[in-house]
This record gives sequence, C-alpha cells and structure tokens, in this order.
Amino acid sequence: MNQSALKDSVGIVQPQCIHFDEALPLRSGKIIDSYDLMIETYGELNADKSNAVLICHALSGDHHAAGFHSEEDEKPGWWDNCIGPGKAIDSNKFFIVCLNNLGGCAGSTGPTSINPANGKPFGPDFPIVTVRDWVNSQARLADYLGIEQWAAVIGGSLGGMQVLRWAISYPERLRHAIVIAAAPKLSAQNIAFNEVARQSITSDPDFHQGHYYEHGTYPKKGLTLARMIGHITYLSDSAMRERFGKDSLTGRNFGRDLSTGKLNFGFDADFQVESYLQYKGESFSNKFDANTYLLITKTLDYFDPSVDYEGDLSKAFLQGNCKFLVVSFSSDWRFPPERSREIVDTLLKAKRQVSYLEVESDGGHDAFLLPVPRYLEGLSAYLSVVANESANSSEKSDHAS
Amino acid sequence: MNQSALKDSVGIVQPQCIHFDEALPLRSGKIIDSYDLMIETYGELNADKSNAVLICHALSGDHHAAGFHSEEDEKPGWWDNCIGPGKAIDSNKFFIVCLNNLGGCAGSTGPTSINPANGKPFGPDFPIVTVRDWVNSQARLADYLGIEQWAAVIGGSLGGMQVLRWAISYPERLRHAIVIAAAPKLSAQNIAFNEVARQSITSDPDFHQGHYYEHGTYPKKGLTLARMIGHITYLSDSAMRERFGKDSLTGRNFGRDLSTGKLNFGFDADFQVESYLQYKGESFSNKFDANTYLLITKTLDYFDPSVDYEGDLSKAFLQGNCKFLVVSFSSDWRFPPERSREIVDTLLKAKRQVSYLEVESDGGHDAFLLPVPRYLEGLSAYLSVVANESANSSEKSDHAS
Repeated sequence: MNQSALKDSVGIVQPQCIHFDEALPLRSGKIIDSYDLMIETYGELNADKSNAVLICHALSGDHHAAGFHSEEDEKPGWWDNCIGPGKAIDSNKFFIVCLNNLGGCAGSTGPTSINPANGKPFGPDFPIVTVRDWVNSQARLADYLGIEQWAAVIGGSLGGMQVLRWAISYPERLRHAIVIAAAPKLSAQNIAFNEVARQSITSDPDFHQGHYYEHGTYPKKGLTLARMIGHITYLSDSAMRERFGKDSLTGRNFGRDLSTGKLNFGFDADFQVESYLQYKGESFSNKFDANTYLLITKTLDYFDPSVDYEGDLSKAFLQGNCKFLVVSFSSDWRFPPERSREIVDTLLKAKRQVSYLEVESDGGHDAFLLPVPRYLEGLSAYLSVVANESANSSEKSDHAS
Repeated sequence: MNQSALKDSVGIVQPQCIHFDEALPLRSGKIIDSYDLMIETYGELNADKSNAVLICHALSGDHHAAGFHSEEDEKPGWWDNCIGPGKAIDSNKFFIVCLNNLGGCAGSTGPTSINPANGKPFGPDFPIVTVRDWVNSQARLADYLGIEQWAAVIGGSLGGMQVLRWAISYPERLRHAIVIAAAPKLSAQNIAFNEVARQSITSDPDFHQGHYYEHGTYPKKGLTLARMIGHITYLSDSAMRERFGKDSLTGRNFGRDLSTGKLNFGFDADFQVESYLQYKGESFSNKFDANTYLLITKTLDYFDPSVDYEGDLSKAFLQGNCKFLVVSFSSDWRFPPERSREIVDTLLKAKRQVSYLEVESDGGHDAFLLPVPRYLEGLSAYLSVVANESANSSEKSDHAS
C-alpha cells in the first residue's frame, strides 16, 4: 500500500455490524423483522455529541467511505477524497458515520442475507426499500449511537436524496443538509436507463428470477451490461474524450486501439472506450449483487417526496431549521445543475436558508467522487463553519457541566 | 388506411430489386461478388436527368421512405413527413430515389441473404461495410439509373454521414448536400452506447455467434434491449416528459401507471416510460435483423472521413462545387447542434458554400423524422431553389435539343 495515502487517510478502519431487533415497517407495507447494518466511523464523538456527521451512500457505495481495511488494501474507501484528517469532511473535527444501507450487499441485511423463514438467501424476496425506509433505519442507528442531532447529513446522488429525506422526515435531527449532485426526483430519462439496466439483468439466463444463488449461477453478463449503461451516464462526453487520450492516427480523441492503429472490421473492441467500459462493467459484476442492483434502481425510481405534499415539494420543507448546501457539477448530465437548482428553488420557496455551489468540472456525475479543487474547497469552507458550531456548542456544554 | 394520408402521399409504391453483378471491393479488404439493392423511387425523372434526389437512410431505415405499399398498409414510409407531392422533398418536382443499404435487412444483400458459397445465410460472415462502401454502391445505382449528377443527396443521422461521404468521394456527382442531425464522426459516448447495444445482442444465448438462423432461434431479448438503449438516445428528456403526460397523482410528468396511480413495489413496469420503451424495443426486434443491427452500429463507429486527411476534415472538402445545407435540432443530444457546427466550420474552412439551420425542437435526435414546422419550411425553401435550378437546366436542354 501507498504509505502516504495511508497517512493522509483515516488509517486502518474496522467495520462494525450492528443488529437491530425492532421490526421496521416499510413503505411497501411489508415489515423487516430484524436486521443488521454494517457501519464504519471515523474521528471522535465530542462530549455533547454535537459533531456527528452522517454519510449516505449512492447506488454502488457502502459503509467503507474512507481509509483502508488492512495494510495490504490497495484502494481506500469510496469517498476518501473528501473524508479524512484535514480533508473537507475532517475526521479531526467530526465524528463521521457511514453505513451500508438495507438491501445492500456489503454486510447489511439484503438479498444475499439468509431469510430466517426458510434458511435460504432472500434473493428476489427481499422487499423493495425506499429512501424513506433507509432514513428511518438510519434514525435508529443514530438512536443506537446516542446521537440526537447530526451536525450534518451529507450525500451525493442517491445519497443526496437521503439527505433531503432526512430534512423532511426528521427536521429537528440535523443542523445541516448537504445535498450533492442530486435531484428532487428522477426524470423520465433517468428511469428509462434504470429500466434498461434492470432488463439486462433479468433477461440474463443465469438470473433464474433472482434465485441464482440456489442455482449456483450468477447473472454476470447482465450485471456487467447494467453497469456499462450506468457508467456511460456517470461520465460526461468530454470526460470520456479526455480519459481515452488523443489518437494521433485518426484525430479521434477517445482511443482507437493504439496498439495497431487499425480498425478490426470485426466485433472485438476497436476503441479504448469499449474495452474500458467492458472492464469496468465486469469488475463491478464480480463484487456487487445483482438483486441489490435491481432493488436500488427501484429505490431511485421511487424517490419523490413531493407525493405526500400534492406535488409541491416546498411544503415538505416547512418544518425544521436545518440549513442547506446544494452542490452540482456543470457536466453532470444524469442530475444536471438545473435539477439542483430545482431543489434550491424549492427550499427558497419554503424560506429555508440555502447555499448553492455550481462547480465547473468535466467529470460528469462522477465528479462528486473526484478531487475537484473548487468542490473540495467549497465543501471544506462550509463544513469548517459547521465544525465551529459544534466546537462552540461543546465548549458551552463543558462550561455548563 | 387513412385515405387523406394516401392522397397527401406519393401513393401506393412498388419497391424494385436491382441486381449488380460487378464485384464491390470493400474498405475492409473484402469483396462482395454481386449484390441486390432494394429501391423505391417517387416522382418522374426529367428529360436531362437533372432533378434526381438521393435519400440516404439511418440506422433502422430502409428503401421505403414514403407512400404506402398497399391499400391495407397502416403506416407510410419512414420519411413521409418530408417526401411527397407538395412536401419539402417534393415528388412533383424531384425524382426521388431511396435504397436499402448493403448489409440491411429489408431486401438488399445483407446478413439474412443466402451466401452462394455455402447456401446458408451470411449471418455474421457478412462483411462489415463502411459509409464509403455504401456510397460506392449508391454511385453504381446512380450509374444504373443513368443519373450523372444528383440535384441533391439528403440524409439524417447516419444518412447525413453518407451525404458527407458523397461530397468527398464523388464531389462532381451532386449539386447539393443536405446533412441533417449528423456529426463528422461519433463521440466516445456515441460509441459507448453502440457497444452496450452490441453486447446486449451478442450476450443473448439465442444469438449463437450470429448463426441464430440455423439454430432456429433469434436474439429477441438482446435486440429489444439494444433498441431500448438506442431509443433513449433518440429522445430528449423533455420529449419523454411530454410524451408520457403529466401524472396528476404524483406531479411527475412522465407517467406513473395511471391505471392504479400506485407503485408496484416489484419489478414490473411502474412508469409508462418503462412499458413504452419495452414496447418499442420488442416491436423493433420483431422486424429487424440482429446481425444487421450489429453491423450498422459498427458502420457508425467507423465513420471518420478525416482519417485520410491527417485528421483535418476540411481538406476532404476542397474538391467539387456542391453546396451544403446543414440542419440540427436544439434538443438532439446524440448529435447535438455543436456537432453540426463542427461540420459547418469545416466546410467554411474549405471555403465551401454552406447554409446552416438550427431548429428549436424538443424532439431530440428523432426530430429529423418529425413534422417540425420550421424544419420542414427551411428544407422546403432550400429545395425549391434546387428544384428551380433543375427546371431551368431542363428548359435549357429542351431549347438546345
């Protein structure tokens, strides 16, 4: 492992599995009797528990947001660019909590878990969970950790939707809501891409209606395809162009096979973008569960908190005092800046305090995971104010005690 | 059939199959010994053969561009909005020729044709053809029809790329090049979508390495998926929103299932956009050949005429005197207006005469097939000048004779 990466990070971290025995009623009407949540925490909770930050993950994320699991670990957690000592989400100042959401495949109860009813994996019988269900389970996690109020709840993409839901469902339990590269609900095009991804998985003959575990198979090809489709929507066209370099032979700047400079006139990959996507899709399919992928795309599709407010989302934000930071990226065409501005307009209509940062970046939707300087600086500046609030509050509580 | 639609159209048309016995050398180095081209023509060729217009089709098009095949025919040809008596491409003024390209599946020689070498369908052994190969075959068709010079060559999307190729390969054989919703070459993102579509087809277990005809199977699911992906890229996000109406229950305007207004909490389609795409994909898969789809996506990927000009496309246009009309649509994100402006800039650099029309439309890439008034008016105005040139030329030739 790169020792300087380890030193710059939260270090070697240990996930924890927390069991919840209280039944969780779901939006679908179903009930999960008991469940596990895998979590990681970074930093120290202060005396008055005012410096806790919750990180909500996106489609393919999990509880491992920062640091390394061992000395041999090659890659840090998925948001190590943002979380760590002296980083934007500063582990020297905050007690940072990240969990794998219900329905996930990284240790929390989900389709790969054993269904106590029949001793087999839940598979497709695992109920569809919504963002609201997730946030309810996260609130129980906060209870478990003794955190009455988060200093901030932070998330990108689907994570940002969880942040919005926190501000609606538990308006008194967070001081700041940081919503990055998100949208108030999916567009028709977003849903269409999700549907094609789902069909890729379910039409794989190895899918067996989701009971592939019992068949000793795995819809690898279908999940690979689904991820390839997703991946195209995470990258901007210009990011793709950048990433694949300039092809001197053709003037195309997205990578004809440079080893030969020639076209195959066959169906093998001619361009680097093709082999790159295949590689990305396959490596994802080796580590992610297909039923979880199906489930979480539905979680995305179903997100629309305005449904309880006659379609007027601003009414959802009339309660509570939390402040908002909304961040978007110029080249994100999955949830473009205009979707973030919808959120901002909604919050302004609800007379909420909101800061908005639109970051120039050609990183596409994935920019929220990347070390884009202006983004990290903006996030850092905002969170240093949040950290000061926590420090002041803790000081007051010290004096009081 | 709708009698007024018939009356407004070129009427009942009869395709012709034309056999070519001269071998066609391909860009890949392979040779097609002999081949058939299916064509349709509308209108009358004038005395000096100066009013002939060639229509080049896009990925899923064919020779049937206008009119009806029988009284019972429900749908007219794919460009009936543009082609017909008094329409933008006026069959009262022009002799309009449209063909199914080589490698197609509507009657011209392609993967579904019998390979004389073994008496079986070519299937995956049909060679990959390029836009240049197509244009060479089209030039032979012009020879066959006795057309020395087209008044105009017209095409949208991949059709527009054929038009560009005409102006490069046969600069003296066309007076006007009309390039609609096209690009000088594909972007990395375009290629990525094509690759995912191809993988959808080739990973279908019914594909059998393209020999599905012999296996009595058909990669229906794979082709359906491929078309669903394509279809998303043809429509704009706003067009999708418009198309699926406003959902009164949720405020979402892309069609939650209106029959129940409720979410399924399952993996059936919840939103109309999902069932719409499935329907579109499936109906396409019933009438189109999967090997042709594979082949034509490669034809698209390979298009890059700058490759013979050290990457400087403007050098490709230094020959000939033909004039250009370039048309783009504001909401087309497959080949957006900036790609058309690249073409325009290239032509200006080559000191060619070019008109450019950027049409406001929320129809996405598909707008080139739709009756968008400003588009049809612009095309019509341009072509009426072209028609006058033909009429004058014909008159002169009458006087001379």
